[in-house]
Amino acid sequence: MNLIENLNWRYATKKMNGQTVSEEKLETILDAIQLSPSSSGLQPFNVFVISDKELLAKIQPIAMGQSQITKCSHLLVFAAWENYTLEKLEKVFNYTLSERGLPLNTMDDYKNNLWGMYSQLPEDWHAHHAAKQAYIALGIGLTAAAEQKVDATPMEGFDPNALDELLNLKEKGLKSSALLALGYRDSENDWLANMKKVRKPKNELFIKL
Amino acid sequence: MNLIENLNWRYATKKMNGQTVSEEKLETILDAIQLSPSSSGLQPFNVFVISDKELLAKIQPIAMGQSQITKCSHLLVFAAWENYTLEKLEKVFNYTLSERGLPLNTMDDYKNNLWGMYSQLPEDWHAHHAAKQAYIALGIGLTAAAEQKVDATPMEGFDPNALDELLNLKEKGLKSSALLALGYRDSENDWLANMKKVRKPKNELFIKL
Repeated sequence: MNLIENLNWRYATKKMNGQTVSEEKLETILDAIQLSPSSSGLQPFNVFVISDKELLAKIQPIAMGQSQITKCSHLLVFAAWENYTLEKLEKVFNYTLSERGLPLNTMDDYKNNLWGMYSQLPEDWHAHHAAKQAYIALGIGLTAAAEQKVDATPMEGFDPNALDELLNLKEKGLKSSALLALGYRDSENDWLANMKKVRKPKNELFIKL
Repeated sequence: MNLIENLNWRYATKKMNGQTVSEEKLETILDAIQLSPSSSGLQPFNVFVISDKELLAKIQPIAMGQSQITKCSHLLVFAAWENYTLEKLEKVFNYTLSERGLPLNTMDDYKNNLWGMYSQLPEDWHAHHAAKQAYIALGIGLTAAAEQKVDATPMEGFDPNALDELLNLKEKGLKSSALLALGYRDSENDWLANMKKVRKPKNELFIKL
Protein backbone atom coordinates (compact mmCIF):
# COMPACT_ATOMS: atom_id res chain seq x y z
CA MET A 1 0.00 0.00 0.00
CA ASN A 2 1.17 3.51 -0.58
CA LEU A 3 1.34 6.35 1.92
CA ILE A 4 -2.11 7.78 1.15
CA GLU A 5 -3.70 4.34 1.57
CA ASN A 6 -1.83 3.90 4.85
CA LEU A 7 -3.00 7.29 6.12
CA ASN A 8 -6.56 6.39 5.21
CA TRP A 9 -6.23 3.02 6.97
CA ARG A 10 -5.00 4.56 10.21
CA TYR A 11 -7.20 6.35 12.73
CA ALA A 12 -6.87 7.52 16.32
CA THR A 13 -7.61 4.11 17.82
CA LYS A 14 -9.74 4.44 20.95
CA LYS A 15 -9.79 0.75 21.98
CA MET A 16 -6.82 -1.54 21.64
CA ASN A 17 -6.83 -5.31 22.16
CA GLY A 18 -3.64 -5.83 24.16
CA GLN A 19 -1.77 -7.64 21.38
CA THR A 20 2.00 -7.10 21.31
CA VAL A 21 3.78 -5.32 18.48
CA SER A 22 6.76 -7.38 17.30
CA GLU A 23 10.28 -6.14 17.98
CA GLU A 24 10.87 -5.88 14.23
CA LYS A 25 7.88 -3.62 13.63
CA LEU A 26 8.67 -1.54 16.71
CA GLU A 27 12.26 -0.99 15.62
CA THR A 28 11.11 0.09 12.15
CA ILE A 29 8.83 2.69 13.73
CA LEU A 30 11.71 3.88 15.91
CA ASP A 31 13.98 4.01 12.84
CA ALA A 32 11.50 6.38 11.19
CA ILE A 33 11.42 8.58 14.29
CA GLN A 34 15.21 8.59 14.39
CA LEU A 35 15.31 9.70 10.73
CA SER A 36 12.85 12.56 11.26
CA PRO A 37 14.33 15.94 10.41
CA SER A 38 14.59 18.67 13.02
CA SER A 39 15.65 22.30 13.13
CA SER A 40 19.44 22.47 12.62
CA GLY A 41 19.47 18.69 13.06
CA LEU A 42 19.35 19.06 16.83
CA GLN A 43 16.73 16.33 17.51
CA PRO A 44 15.91 18.18 20.74
CA PHE A 45 13.95 15.39 22.39
CA ASN A 46 14.03 11.88 23.76
CA VAL A 47 11.40 9.25 23.21
CA PHE A 48 10.54 6.93 26.09
CA VAL A 49 9.42 3.53 24.85
CA ILE A 50 7.34 2.05 27.65
CA SER A 51 6.10 -1.51 27.76
CA ASP A 52 6.39 -2.13 31.52
CA LYS A 53 2.84 -2.95 32.58
CA GLU A 54 3.20 -1.55 36.10
CA LEU A 55 4.52 1.73 34.79
CA LEU A 56 1.71 1.93 32.21
CA ALA A 57 -0.81 1.36 35.00
CA LYS A 58 0.69 4.33 36.84
CA ILE A 59 0.49 6.49 33.73
CA GLN A 60 -3.16 5.68 33.02
CA PRO A 61 -4.70 7.89 35.74
CA ILE A 62 -2.40 10.73 34.64
CA ALA A 63 -3.82 10.33 31.13
CA MET A 64 -7.50 10.71 31.92
CA GLY A 65 -7.89 6.96 32.43
CA GLN A 66 -7.72 6.31 28.71
CA SER A 67 -7.79 2.58 28.01
CA GLN A 68 -5.13 2.64 25.29
CA ILE A 69 -2.48 3.37 27.93
CA THR A 70 -2.76 -0.14 29.36
CA LYS A 71 -4.10 -1.93 26.26
CA CYS A 72 -1.36 -0.74 23.95
CA SER A 73 1.77 -2.74 23.31
CA HIS A 74 4.20 0.15 23.71
CA LEU A 75 3.58 3.72 24.78
CA LEU A 76 5.91 6.29 23.26
CA VAL A 77 6.40 9.45 25.32
CA PHE A 78 7.85 12.31 23.28
CA ALA A 79 9.79 14.41 25.77
CA ALA A 80 11.32 17.62 24.43
CA TRP A 81 14.26 19.58 25.76
CA GLU A 82 13.11 22.29 28.12
CA ASN A 83 15.76 24.57 26.66
CA TYR A 84 18.66 24.84 24.27
CA THR A 85 22.16 25.54 25.58
CA LEU A 86 25.43 26.20 23.81
CA GLU A 87 26.75 22.92 25.22
CA LYS A 88 23.85 20.94 23.76
CA LEU A 89 24.34 22.56 20.35
CA GLU A 90 28.06 21.84 20.44
CA LYS A 91 27.53 18.21 21.35
CA VAL A 92 25.21 17.63 18.38
CA PHE A 93 27.30 19.57 15.88
CA ASN A 94 30.54 17.91 16.99
CA TYR A 95 28.97 14.49 16.59
CA THR A 96 27.66 15.38 13.11
CA LEU A 97 31.04 16.75 12.02
CA SER A 98 32.95 13.77 13.38
CA GLU A 99 30.58 11.37 11.59
CA ARG A 100 31.22 13.33 8.38
CA GLY A 101 34.97 13.39 8.89
CA LEU A 102 35.06 17.20 8.98
CA PRO A 103 37.07 19.51 11.27
CA LEU A 104 35.16 20.34 14.45
CA ASN A 105 35.32 24.09 13.74
CA THR A 106 33.48 23.74 10.40
CA MET A 107 30.15 24.83 11.83
CA ASP A 108 31.45 27.47 14.25
CA ASP A 109 29.88 30.44 12.42
CA TYR A 110 26.57 28.63 12.07
CA LYS A 111 26.62 27.58 15.70
CA ASN A 112 27.47 31.05 16.96
CA ASN A 113 24.74 32.66 14.86
CA LEU A 114 22.20 30.10 16.04
CA TRP A 115 23.15 30.47 19.67
CA GLY A 116 23.20 34.26 19.31
CA MET A 117 19.54 33.99 18.31
CA TYR A 118 18.41 31.25 20.71
CA SER A 119 20.14 32.75 23.72
CA GLN A 120 18.00 35.89 23.40
CA LEU A 121 14.69 34.04 23.28
CA PRO A 122 12.73 33.26 26.44
CA GLU A 123 12.87 29.78 27.95
CA ASP A 124 9.27 28.99 27.06
CA TRP A 125 10.08 29.72 23.40
CA HIS A 126 12.83 27.10 23.69
CA ALA A 127 10.45 24.52 25.11
CA HIS A 128 7.78 25.17 22.48
CA HIS A 129 10.34 25.11 19.68
CA ALA A 130 11.82 21.82 20.85
CA ALA A 131 8.33 20.34 21.23
CA LYS A 132 7.49 21.30 17.65
CA GLN A 133 10.49 19.32 16.44
CA ALA A 134 9.18 16.34 18.41
CA TYR A 135 5.82 16.74 16.65
CA ILE A 136 7.50 16.31 13.26
CA ALA A 137 8.79 12.99 14.58
CA LEU A 138 5.35 12.18 16.01
CA GLY A 139 3.83 12.64 12.54
CA ILE A 140 6.47 10.48 10.91
CA GLY A 141 6.26 7.85 13.66
CA LEU A 142 2.53 7.40 13.26
CA THR A 143 2.96 7.20 9.48
CA ALA A 144 5.56 4.47 9.97
CA ALA A 145 3.21 2.63 12.30
CA ALA A 146 0.48 2.71 9.64
CA GLU A 147 2.91 1.31 7.07
CA GLN A 148 3.61 -1.56 9.50
CA LYS A 149 -0.15 -2.05 9.98
CA VAL A 150 0.33 -1.12 13.60
CA ASP A 151 -2.31 1.10 15.12
CA ALA A 152 -1.15 4.30 16.73
CA THR A 153 -3.02 6.82 18.83
CA PRO A 154 -1.45 10.25 19.24
CA MET A 155 -2.54 11.61 22.61
CA GLU A 156 -2.30 14.98 24.29
CA GLY A 157 -4.89 14.29 26.98
CA PHE A 158 -2.56 13.85 29.95
CA ASP A 159 -1.16 15.93 32.77
CA PRO A 160 2.36 16.78 31.58
CA ASN A 161 3.57 17.89 35.02
CA ALA A 162 2.49 14.64 36.66
CA LEU A 163 4.05 12.57 33.88
CA ASP A 164 7.28 14.59 34.08
CA GLU A 165 7.41 13.82 37.77
CA LEU A 166 6.69 10.11 37.33
CA LEU A 167 9.43 9.74 34.70
CA ASN A 168 11.88 12.14 36.42
CA LEU A 169 11.94 14.27 33.31
CA LYS A 170 12.74 17.56 35.02
CA GLU A 171 16.11 16.33 36.21
CA LYS A 172 16.84 15.23 32.65
CA GLY A 173 15.93 18.70 31.32
CA LEU A 174 12.91 17.32 29.47
CA LYS A 175 9.17 18.03 29.27
CA SER A 176 6.63 15.48 28.06
CA SER A 177 4.82 16.85 25.06
CA ALA A 178 2.85 14.05 23.37
CA LEU A 179 2.12 10.34 23.64
CA LEU A 180 1.85 7.77 20.89
CA ALA A 181 0.22 4.48 21.91
CA LEU A 182 1.21 1.59 19.60
CA GLY A 183 -0.84 -1.57 19.39
CA TYR A 184 -3.77 -3.15 17.62
CA ARG A 185 -7.34 -1.96 17.27
CA ASP A 186 -10.21 -3.76 18.97
CA SER A 187 -12.53 -3.02 16.04
CA GLU A 188 -15.65 -4.54 17.59
CA ASN A 189 -15.49 -2.36 20.67
CA ASP A 190 -14.09 0.84 19.24
CA TRP A 191 -16.82 3.34 18.41
CA LEU A 192 -14.45 5.18 16.09
CA ALA A 193 -13.22 2.14 14.15
CA ASN A 194 -15.94 2.26 11.51
CA MET A 195 -16.70 5.96 11.44
CA LYS A 196 -16.01 7.89 8.28
CA LYS A 197 -12.66 9.69 8.38
CA VAL A 198 -13.44 13.39 8.08
CA ARG A 199 -10.99 16.06 7.02
CA LYS A 200 -11.49 19.63 5.87
CA PRO A 201 -12.01 19.87 2.12
CA LYS A 202 -8.79 20.62 0.28
CA ASN A 203 -10.16 23.89 -1.10
CA GLU A 204 -10.61 25.09 2.50
CA LEU A 205 -7.32 23.81 3.88
CA PHE A 206 -5.09 24.93 1.02
CA ILE A 207 -4.80 28.42 -0.42
CA LYS A 208 -3.03 28.51 -3.78
CA LEU A 209 -1.19 31.67 -4.76
CA MET B 1 10.77 1.83 -1.82
CA ASN B 2 9.52 1.68 1.72
CA LEU B 3 9.22 4.51 4.20
CA ILE B 4 12.66 4.03 5.78
CA GLU B 5 14.33 4.04 2.37
CA ASN B 6 12.39 7.19 1.46
CA LEU B 7 13.45 8.91 4.68
CA ASN B 8 17.07 7.98 3.97
CA TRP B 9 16.77 9.28 0.38
CA ARG B 10 15.44 12.66 1.48
CA TYR B 11 17.54 15.44 2.96
CA ALA B 12 17.11 19.15 3.63
CA THR B 13 17.90 20.20 0.08
CA LYS B 14 19.95 23.40 0.04
CA LYS B 15 20.08 23.94 -3.74
CA MET B 16 17.16 23.24 -6.04
CA ASN B 17 17.27 23.27 -9.84
CA GLY B 18 14.04 25.11 -10.67
CA GLN B 19 12.27 22.07 -12.15
CA THR B 20 8.49 22.00 -11.69
CA VAL B 21 6.73 19.36 -9.59
CA SER B 22 3.82 17.85 -11.53
CA GLU B 23 0.27 18.60 -10.46
CA GLU B 24 -0.26 14.91 -9.73
CA LYS B 25 2.68 14.67 -7.34
CA LEU B 26 1.79 17.99 -5.73
CA GLU B 27 -1.79 16.88 -5.11
CA THR B 28 -0.59 13.61 -3.55
CA ILE B 29 1.60 15.58 -1.13
CA LEU B 30 -1.36 17.83 -0.30
CA ASP B 31 -3.57 14.74 0.18
CA ALA B 32 -1.12 13.48 2.80
CA ILE B 33 -1.15 16.84 4.58
CA GLN B 34 -4.94 16.84 4.50
CA LEU B 35 -4.99 13.34 6.06
CA SER B 36 -2.62 14.30 8.89
CA PRO B 37 -4.14 13.87 12.32
CA SER B 38 -4.55 16.81 14.69
CA SER B 39 -5.68 17.35 18.24
CA SER B 40 -9.47 16.79 18.40
CA GLY B 41 -9.43 16.73 14.59
CA LEU B 42 -9.37 20.52 14.47
CA GLN B 43 -6.72 20.90 11.74
CA PRO B 44 -6.01 24.38 13.16
CA PHE B 45 -4.02 25.69 10.22
CA ASN B 46 -4.05 26.58 6.55
CA VAL B 47 -1.34 25.76 4.08
CA PHE B 48 -0.49 28.34 1.42
CA VAL B 49 0.75 26.70 -1.76
CA ILE B 50 2.79 29.33 -3.54
CA SER B 51 4.12 29.02 -7.08
CA ASP B 52 3.76 32.64 -8.18
CA LYS B 53 7.31 33.67 -9.05
CA GLU B 54 6.83 37.33 -8.15
CA LEU B 55 5.48 36.44 -4.74
CA LEU B 56 8.33 33.97 -4.15
CA ALA B 57 10.81 36.72 -5.03
CA LYS B 58 9.19 38.89 -2.36
CA ILE B 59 9.41 36.10 0.20
CA GLN B 60 13.09 35.37 -0.44
CA PRO B 61 14.52 38.40 1.43
CA ILE B 62 12.17 37.63 4.35
CA ALA B 63 13.69 34.11 4.42
CA MET B 64 17.34 35.05 4.78
CA GLY B 65 17.80 35.07 1.01
CA GLN B 66 17.72 31.29 0.86
CA SER B 67 17.89 30.11 -2.75
CA GLN B 68 15.29 27.36 -2.41
CA ILE B 69 12.58 30.02 -2.08
CA THR B 70 12.92 30.98 -5.74
CA LYS B 71 14.36 27.71 -7.07
CA CYS B 72 11.64 25.52 -5.64
CA SER B 73 8.58 24.53 -7.62
CA HIS B 74 6.06 25.26 -4.86
CA LEU B 75 6.57 26.80 -1.45
CA LEU B 76 4.22 25.56 1.26
CA VAL B 77 3.61 28.01 4.11
CA PHE B 78 2.13 26.32 7.17
CA ALA B 79 0.09 29.02 8.88
CA ALA B 80 -1.47 28.07 12.21
CA TRP B 81 -4.50 29.57 13.91
CA GLU B 82 -3.47 32.31 16.32
CA ASN B 83 -6.13 31.08 18.70
CA TYR B 84 -9.00 28.67 19.23
CA THR B 85 -12.53 29.98 19.67
CA LEU B 86 -15.79 28.25 20.48
CA GLU B 87 -17.06 29.18 17.02
CA LYS B 88 -14.07 27.55 15.31
CA LEU B 89 -14.54 24.37 17.37
CA GLU B 90 -18.24 24.27 16.55
CA LYS B 91 -17.65 24.71 12.85
CA VAL B 92 -15.25 21.74 12.72
CA PHE B 93 -17.34 19.46 14.93
CA ASN B 94 -20.56 20.28 13.06
CA TYR B 95 -18.88 19.46 9.76
CA THR B 96 -17.54 16.16 11.14
CA LEU B 97 -20.93 15.18 12.56
CA SER B 98 -22.80 16.09 9.39
CA GLU B 99 -20.32 14.06 7.30
CA ARG B 100 -20.94 11.12 9.63
CA GLY B 101 -24.71 11.55 9.54
CA LEU B 102 -24.88 12.13 13.31
CA PRO B 103 -27.00 14.67 15.25
CA LEU B 104 -25.17 17.96 15.70
CA ASN B 105 -25.42 17.76 19.51
CA THR B 106 -23.51 14.43 19.64
CA MET B 107 -20.23 16.06 20.61
CA ASP B 108 -21.62 18.79 22.89
CA ASP B 109 -20.09 17.41 26.10
CA TYR B 110 -16.74 16.89 24.43
CA LYS B 111 -16.85 20.35 22.89
CA ASN B 112 -17.79 22.04 26.16
CA ASN B 113 -15.06 20.23 28.07
CA LEU B 114 -12.49 21.12 25.46
CA TRP B 115 -13.53 24.76 25.33
CA GLY B 116 -13.65 24.89 29.11
CA MET B 117 -9.99 23.94 29.05
CA TYR B 118 -8.81 25.98 26.05
CA SER B 119 -10.64 29.14 27.10
CA GLN B 120 -8.58 29.28 30.30
CA LEU B 121 -5.23 28.99 28.56
CA PRO B 122 -3.31 32.08 27.41
CA GLU B 123 -3.40 33.11 23.77
CA ASP B 124 0.23 32.22 23.17
CA TRP B 125 -0.51 28.66 24.36
CA HIS B 126 -3.21 28.54 21.68
CA ALA B 127 -0.80 29.67 18.98
CA HIS B 128 1.91 27.19 20.02
CA HIS B 129 -0.58 24.35 20.28
CA ALA B 130 -2.01 25.04 16.83
CA ALA B 131 1.51 25.33 15.39
CA LYS B 132 2.40 21.92 16.83
CA GLN B 133 -0.53 20.36 14.95
CA ALA B 134 0.82 21.98 11.78
CA TYR B 135 4.20 20.37 12.48
CA ILE B 136 2.60 16.91 12.46
CA ALA B 137 1.36 17.75 8.97
CA LEU B 138 4.79 19.15 8.07
CA GLY B 139 6.36 15.80 9.00
CA ILE B 140 3.81 13.84 7.01
CA GLY B 141 4.02 16.23 4.06
CA LEU B 142 7.78 15.87 3.74
CA THR B 143 7.44 12.09 4.02
CA ALA B 144 4.88 12.15 1.19
CA ALA B 145 7.24 14.28 -0.89
CA ALA B 146 10.02 11.73 -0.39
CA GLU B 147 7.68 8.93 -1.50
CA GLN B 148 7.00 10.96 -4.69
CA LYS B 149 10.76 11.47 -5.14
CA VAL B 150 10.17 15.16 -4.72
CA ASP B 151 12.74 17.03 -2.65
CA ALA B 152 11.46 19.01 0.27
CA THR B 153 13.23 21.46 2.54
CA PRO B 154 11.57 22.26 5.85
CA MET B 155 12.56 25.80 6.79
CA GLU B 156 12.20 27.91 9.92
CA GLY B 157 14.74 30.56 8.93
CA PHE B 158 12.38 33.38 8.05
CA ASP B 159 10.85 36.42 9.71
CA PRO B 160 7.33 35.27 10.63
CA ASN B 161 6.03 38.78 11.27
CA ALA B 162 7.16 40.02 7.85
CA LEU B 163 5.70 36.95 6.13
CA ASP B 164 2.43 37.34 8.03
CA GLU B 165 2.24 40.89 6.78
CA LEU B 166 3.05 39.99 3.18
CA LEU B 167 0.38 37.26 3.09
CA ASN B 168 -2.15 39.24 5.17
CA LEU B 169 -2.21 36.42 7.72
CA LYS B 170 -3.13 38.53 10.72
CA GLU B 171 -6.50 39.48 9.28
CA LYS B 172 -7.12 35.77 8.64
CA GLY B 173 -6.27 34.93 12.28
CA LEU B 174 -3.17 33.00 11.21
CA LYS B 175 0.56 32.96 12.03
CA SER B 176 3.17 31.51 9.71
CA SER B 177 5.03 28.74 11.51
CA ALA B 178 7.08 26.76 9.00
CA LEU B 179 7.91 26.56 5.30
CA LEU B 180 8.31 23.50 3.11
CA ALA B 181 9.98 24.12 -0.23
CA LEU B 182 9.11 21.44 -2.82
CA GLY B 183 11.24 20.88 -5.88
CA TYR B 184 14.24 18.98 -7.15
CA ARG B 185 17.78 18.87 -5.85
CA ASP B 186 20.67 20.38 -7.80
CA SER B 187 23.03 17.64 -6.66
CA GLU B 188 26.15 19.03 -8.29
CA ASN B 189 25.89 22.39 -6.55
CA ASP B 190 24.42 21.36 -3.21
CA TRP B 191 27.10 20.91 -0.57
CA LEU B 192 24.74 18.79 1.52
CA ALA B 193 23.63 16.44 -1.28
CA ASN B 194 26.39 13.90 -0.76
CA MET B 195 27.07 14.35 2.93
CA LYS B 196 26.41 11.44 5.26
CA LYS B 197 23.01 11.68 6.95
CA VAL B 198 23.70 11.89 10.67
CA ARG B 199 21.21 11.14 13.41
CA LYS B 200 21.64 10.48 17.11
CA PRO B 201 22.25 6.80 17.85
CA LYS B 202 19.05 4.99 18.77
CA ASN B 203 20.38 4.09 22.20
CA GLU B 204 20.73 7.82 22.94
CA LEU B 205 17.44 8.95 21.41
CA PHE B 206 15.24 6.20 22.87
CA ILE B 207 14.89 5.22 26.50
CA LYS B 208 13.20 1.87 26.99
CA LEU B 209 11.29 1.25 30.20
